Amino acid sequence: MPEAPYAADETALLFIDPYNDFLSEGGKMWPLVKTVAEEVGLLANLRTIMAAVRRSGIQVFIVPHHRSEPGDFACWHHATPYQKQSAAVQVFARGEWGGEWRPEFAPQAGDVVVKEHWGSSGFANTDLDMQLKQHGIRRLVLIGLLANTCIETTAKFGVELGYHVTLVRDATAAFSQDRMHAAHELNGPTYAHAILTTMELLAQLPSRSLAD
Amino acid sequence: MPEAPYAADETALLFIDPYNDFLSEGGKMWPLVKTVAEEVGLLANLRTIMAAVRRSGIQVFIVPHHRSEPGDFACWHHATPYQKQSAAVQVFARGEWGGEWRPEFAPQAGDVVVKEHWGSSGFANTDLDMQLKQHGIRRLVLIGLLANTCIETTAKFGVELGYHVTLVRDATAAFSQDRMHAAHELNGPTYAHAILTTMELLAQLPSRSLAD
Amino acid sequence: MPEAPYAADETALLFIDPYNDFLSEGGKMWPLVKTVAEEVGLLANLRTIMAAVRRSGIQVFIVPHHRSEPGDFACWHHATPYQKQSAAVQVFARGEWGGEWRPEFAPQAGDVVVKEHWGSSGFANTDLDMQLKQHGIRRLVLIGLLANTCIETTAKFGVELGYHVTLVRDATAAFSQDRMHAAHELNGPTYAHAILTTMELLAQLPSRSLAD
Amino acid sequence: MPEAPYAADETALLFIDPYNDFLSEGGKMWPLVKTVAEEVGLLANLRTIMAAVRRSGIQVFIVPHHRSEPGDFACWHHATPYQKQSAAVQVFARGEWGGEWRPEFAPQAGDVVVKEHWGSSGFANTDLDMQLKQHGIRRLVLIGLLANTCIETTAKFGVELGYHVTLVRDATAAFSQDRMHAAHELNGPTYAHAILTTMELLAQLPSRSLAD
Repeated sequence: MPEAPYAADETALLFIDPYNDFLSEGGKMWPLVKTVAEEVGLLANLRTIMAAVRRSGIQVFIVPHHRSEPGDFACWHHATPYQKQSAAVQVFARGEWGGEWRPEFAPQAGDVVVKEHWGSSGFANTDLDMQLKQHGIRRLVLIGLLANTCIETTAKFGVELGYHVTLVRDATAAFSQDRMHAAHELNGPTYAHAILTTMELLAQLPSRSLAD
Repeated sequence: MPEAPYAADETALLFIDPYNDFLSEGGKMWPLVKTVAEEVGLLANLRTIMAAVRRSGIQVFIVPHHRSEPGDFACWHHATPYQKQSAAVQVFARGEWGGEWRPEFAPQAGDVVVKEHWGSSGFANTDLDMQLKQHGIRRLVLIGLLANTCIETTAKFGVELGYHVTLVRDATAAFSQDRMHAAHELNGPTYAHAILTTMELLAQLPSRSLAD
Repeated sequence: MPEAPYAADETALLFIDPYNDFLSEGGKMWPLVKTVAEEVGLLANLRTIMAAVRRSGIQVFIVPHHRSEPGDFACWHHATPYQKQSAAVQVFARGEWGGEWRPEFAPQAGDVVVKEHWGSSGFANTDLDMQLKQHGIRRLVLIGLLANTCIETTAKFGVELGYHVTLVRDATAAFSQDRMHAAHELNGPTYAHAILTTMELLAQLPSRSLAD
Repeated sequence: MPEAPYAADETALLFIDPYNDFLSEGGKMWPLVKTVAEEVGLLANLRTIMAAVRRSGIQVFIVPHHRSEPGDFACWHHATPYQKQSAAVQVFARGEWGGEWRPEFAPQAGDVVVKEHWGSSGFANTDLDMQLKQHGIRRLVLIGLLANTCIETTAKFGVELGYHVTLVRDATAAFSQDRMHAAHELNGPTYAHAILTTMELLAQLPSRSLAD
C-alpha cells in the first residue's frame, strides 16, 4: 500500500443520496434503514468523515438519485419494478422536504453536485466520470446509501471505469444486516480495492497543516 | 406482462464466460462452483436453455471474460485484489484448455462473440451495447457465471443502459449458496425486471413454427 | 433502403439547442449563424419538420446544451478554450431569455427533455442513450445547431453507440458555409447513414391516418 | 499554460491506426492519403515524434481500427455506408500485410495496445478510457490517420470524457487538403485544447535526464 493512499489532490469523497428521505427522522425511507443505521452508528460516522475530509482538502462530490416527479416512468417501455415502487411512493420528491438535503450534509461552496442518476449507479447517465477527470481524481471513497444498491453499483461502475475504489462499511446502511453482509463480505471483495471502517479511513486520510 | 415478453427479434441471450475453467471437470474454478452448480442443476439447465433459445430464433451473444496472459496488470496503477488473484492463478489462460469454450457451449455460426471484458461487467470496455443495438435487441436474458459477480454486474449495467433484464436463478452458480441468495433474493429485486427459473423462462420463450 | 425507414415507433427526432440565443433575433449567437440560417431557410425548415414529425407520431427529444452560470469551469483542470469563451459570454445563460427555448420550439407534453450536455455531444454525460432505449428508438434524425459542432458530435456518438443516424442539411446552420460544407460533404459521409434535405426527409416520414 | 504541459507521468501518445494499408507504399489506402501525407511530411514527423516520446518516458497507446474479416457487418441492422465500403475493400484485412503494423511503428514492449474500434472513435466499444486511467493519464496527444475521421472522433470523445486533448497538424493526413483544413481550422478549435505542429510539440515535451 502506498504511504498516502488518499492524497488530497487525487481523491474524491462521493456522498451518495444525502436526502432527508434517507437520513432524517420522518423521511420516507428512514424507517427501512434506521435499524442498521443505528447499529453501525451511521450519522455519527458520516459527520466524522465529512469533517475529516473537509479538513484534509479532499474534493467532495454529491451524487444524488433522481428526485421523484409525478408521471415519472409513465412513458418508459420498461422501468424496473423497483423504480415503479419508488415512483409510487415519490421517494426524494422534488420540491418537498424528503427530496431536500439533510441540512448538515448539504453541499458547501466548492463541492461538485453531479447530475441526478435514474437508477442505482451514480455514473450512469450523469457527468460524474467527466467531472472526476476535470478535478484530477483517481481514487474514490464512497459513503451514503444504500450499501447494496447505489453504493455498490456506483462502486462497481467506478472500478470498471478504471478508478481506485474504497468502501466504508459503517458509513452506509441497508434494509437489513444480511444486505450489509452481502455488500461487504460477499460482493465487496470481488471488486473493491479497500473496505474500511470509518476509523481505518480516518487513519489514512492526509492531514493538512495549518499553514496550507 | 406482455403476451410475448421475449420476442425473438428483440431478445438476446447473453451467455457469460462459458469457459472450461468455470464449467468443466478439471477447470481451475470448477471446484469452487461445483457444489452450487450441482445443487441447481446448472449444466442441464444451460443445455436446456441453449436448445430452446436456438430453436426460438433468439440471438445468442457470448460474453467472455478476459483470458489471462502472463504480465496482466503489471503496469496498471491499481488492479483490484480480485484481478490480481485471477492473474496469479491465470484463470481462463489464453491458449490453454481452461480458456477454451466448454465444447457443448462453444459459439455457433451466427452467434455474436463480444470483446473480452477486464472486470465483471460484460458491457464495460467492450462492444456489447453497440452490438446489441446493431441486432435490434431490447431485452436481455443472462445465464452463466458467476451469479454475484459477472452476471450481476453485467445485468446492472444492462439496466442502467436502458435494457429489459432477466436473471435465471438456476442457470448460474456461485461459490456458495449465500452468494446465490444475495444475488437473487437481496440484490436482484432492486434492479432486475424478472428473476425466473429455467422452467419459467422456457414457458415464456417464443416457439418457432416449422414453417419459419 | 427499407420502405419505411423512419417508422414512428422506432425513430426519434433530436432537436439540439432550440435556445433563443441560437435561433432568435437578439440572441447572443444569432448574429454568427444568421447568414447561413437565412441562406438555407433554417427557421422555416425547422417549423416544417416539427409539424410533420408531430403529425407522424415520431417521438421528440430536446437535447439541450448546458446553460451558462457564473463560475462555470472555474474549478475544472482543463476546460477547452471554446468552453471558456462560452462562459465568458454566458451563452444560454440560465434564468435569462437567451437560455430559454425559442417559444415555437419549446417542449410539448410528451417530449423528452434530456439532461444538459457540457460539451458538444448530446450523449456525453447525459441520459440520452438510456432514454432512447426506454422509448424503443433505433433511428435518429438530428436537427438544430451547430452543424459542425453539436449536431456532428452528437451524430458521431449516435453512430458509435449503434444507432441509425440521419442528418438534415438545411435544418441546421453554422458560422460559415465552409463549415456547412465540412459537415455535410467532407465529414458527414464518413459516418452518417443518410444526409437529406428537409423535403427529402418529409417524403420519407410515415403518415398517420386520422383513425390513429 | 503550465510550465510542463505534457508531464511524462500523466500524458499519453495515442497512435491511431499505424497499419501498412494507411502508411506504406502498396497499402490499400495509401494512394488516397499519399498527396497530403507527403505535403505535410507525415512519415518523417511520425518518426520524429515517436523517438522523442519514447525518450521522454511518455506512455504510448496503439489505438487500432477493426481489422476487416469476411462477413463483417453482414448481420448488422445498419452498418454505415462507409463501413460497408471498408468491408468491401477489406481494409486492414486481418492476417494480411495491409492489416499489419507498419514495422517502424509496431508496438514495443510496454506499449498498451487497445482493443480494436469498429467505427471512428478509439474510445467507443473499447478499453481505451479504462486503460488510460489505469496508467494515470490525463492528457492525450493524438497522431496517425485520418485527421477528419478517427483522429477527430477519438479526440472529441476524449474531450467529452474529461481529458486534455492535443492535435498535431502535420502528424496526420487526410484524403484532401480541405479535409485537413476542416479538421484543424474549422472543427479543431471548437473542442481541442491545443493544435500544434510537430516542432511545437517537441519543444514542449519533457526531457528525461540520462540519470532517469
